[in-house]
Amino acid sequence: MKDVAARAGVGLKTVSRVVNGEPGVTPETERRVQEAIDALGFRRNDSARVLRKGRTASIGLVLEDLADPFYGPLSRAVEEVARAHGALLINGSSAEDPDREQELALALCARRVDGLVVIPAGDDHRYLEPEIKAGVATVFVDRPAGRIDADVVLSDNFGGARDGVAHLIAHGHRRIGFIGDMPRIHTAAERLRGYRAAMEDAGIPVEDSWMSLGVTDPQRVRRAAEEMLTGPDPVTAIFAGNNRVTVTVVRVLAEQSRRVAFVGFDDIELADLLQPGVTVVAQDAAALGRTAAERLFRQLDGDLITPERIELPTRLITRGSGELPPTD
Amino acid sequence: MKDVAARAGVGLKTVSRVVNGEPGVTPETERRVQEAIDALGFRRNDSARVLRKGRTASIGLVLEDLADPFYGPLSRAVEEVARAHGALLINGSSAEDPDREQELALALCARRVDGLVVIPAGDDHRYLEPEIKAGVATVFVDRPAGRIDADVVLSDNFGGARDGVAHLIAHGHRRIGFIGDMPRIHTAAERLRGYRAAMEDAGIPVEDSWMSLGVTDPQRVRRAAEEMLTGPDPVTAIFAGNNRVTVTVVRVLAEQSRRVAFVGFDDIELADLLQPGVTVVAQDAAALGRTAAERLFRQLDGDLITPERIELPTRLITRGSGELPPTD
Repeated sequence: MKDVAARAGVGLKTVSRVVNGEPGVTPETERRVQEAIDALGFRRNDSARVLRKGRTASIGLVLEDLADPFYGPLSRAVEEVARAHGALLINGSSAEDPDREQELALALCARRVDGLVVIPAGDDHRYLEPEIKAGVATVFVDRPAGRIDADVVLSDNFGGARDGVAHLIAHGHRRIGFIGDMPRIHTAAERLRGYRAAMEDAGIPVEDSWMSLGVTDPQRVRRAAEEMLTGPDPVTAIFAGNNRVTVTVVRVLAEQSRRVAFVGFDDIELADLLQPGVTVVAQDAAALGRTAAERLFRQLDGDLITPERIELPTRLITRGSGELPPTD
Repeated sequence: MKDVAARAGVGLKTVSRVVNGEPGVTPETERRVQEAIDALGFRRNDSARVLRKGRTASIGLVLEDLADPFYGPLSRAVEEVARAHGALLINGSSAEDPDREQELALALCARRVDGLVVIPAGDDHRYLEPEIKAGVATVFVDRPAGRIDADVVLSDNFGGARDGVAHLIAHGHRRIGFIGDMPRIHTAAERLRGYRAAMEDAGIPVEDSWMSLGVTDPQRVRRAAEEMLTGPDPVTAIFAGNNRVTVTVVRVLAEQSRRVAFVGFDDIELADLLQPGVTVVAQDAAALGRTAAERLFRQLDGDLITPERIELPTRLITRGSGELPPTD
């Protein structure tokens, strides 16, 4: 829009009037704006989108995993904001596959959504540049965009993990295990970094055998936990990198004869009713979704905002498991 | 298409050529075909859909609630079947609002999905008839379609609830409460019917104060449970109509000084780790999604199948809470 305005020698408001078919523009000005749009090389479909009158009143959400309970409240919050703006929300899931993410995001654009909220699986989002230029509002949430400048809403994954691990250290633990998701996933890498920082702050050298990153299916996580608990230098506490890891580790710990302290990233349902209650670093999944969606509608409302990285705080909720002393 | 051909006095192949923009049709013939299409009252979008070449390789899923964990495995199963057929899945949620369901289903059709899997919020689906006639494959899941003849995949809600309540009766309970979702929801009504049948089979007259149906938010459910537990004729056991009710009732029961038996419809995560473990009537949510999606692709593959109602069995999983004896 800015480039069009500069080339046509008019203000942004005038460009907006022309593309929205509003009155108050002379035919000559309209022609200049149209020429500028043409000269700047928008593809036909794209210009059709830019030039369309009004909106389709729908936005798209590209999820990572339809079955992960973390994304439930996030999706619902996006949907509530969409509804408050009279828009329909359409979702799809990438299942942690970058190609699938791209296919889905572009399929939603081809179906003329006004904007996209993306939980990215991949780390290169240049494929979205033509869509963004064509006027599709875009906000990334939970994980950052790769290789493009875009609005991003994240939790403080690094700080949250550091606080959770520091909490275990404050309760006397030194041999603390970390079990997380695949290291190529931004949140997993950031949380591992938080674990390392807390250990380093306390002057505790980390053994390689205390860290395990990989897929979060129960078998892999169970094996990782059991190895940390039975190795030559067994841990007295475990920090879990996300909710999928937590549900398996909590199960493994319930089978142990000795008590092992535990803190998990992400809150889980019924965590307070387990014995002991599960101490967690909670993200506000609904706030992530709401913030991202509100940002999207600000873009759509024509607020010319520069892309920002918004980081939401996490919260340590103590319920018992993270306050157990070391037993060794 | 046939009607269009008859009215325009041309063959089907000619109609197909016109709608697909293929060569070999005179302008006069094209005009006649277009007039026939207009006269037969296709909306522009519909005729575009009828006339399209091949498929868009995408299907839609109309969910009820994005944040309900029951729908997670169901959605993922639909997605996996779609992927196995090379199709993209697009979702949206009705949030239990029939108008919203209709708006969303039609919006997905307007975006040219090949088929729809619908978890209905409403009980009148005649609005889908033009879409179905236009070739959109349709399967309902979890709840039946209303006022149209369509494929439906359900759990045995009646039988599952009856078995769960009979299990409590077999453990000596006679004063058993039922807390369920809004009675206008098919699954809630069927499960209440199962509760009544089990009580009647055992010759136990049911007090009105033992039954509570309504929204499943924690406050309403908590109040209902507390009233049943403290009234003049307090219950010694509670049957919960779904997973949202279960998580609240389990919390209320954990606060009681006396032990109250419990069985819930739907399994919940970590149910086995609570004290006592939570006995449930489990549905196979993934099988519901998979069965519905496979049925949808059979329709798309041109199998001329007559609409069927497929009912999947439920499974009682005993873990402790449902085997507690009455204390009164």
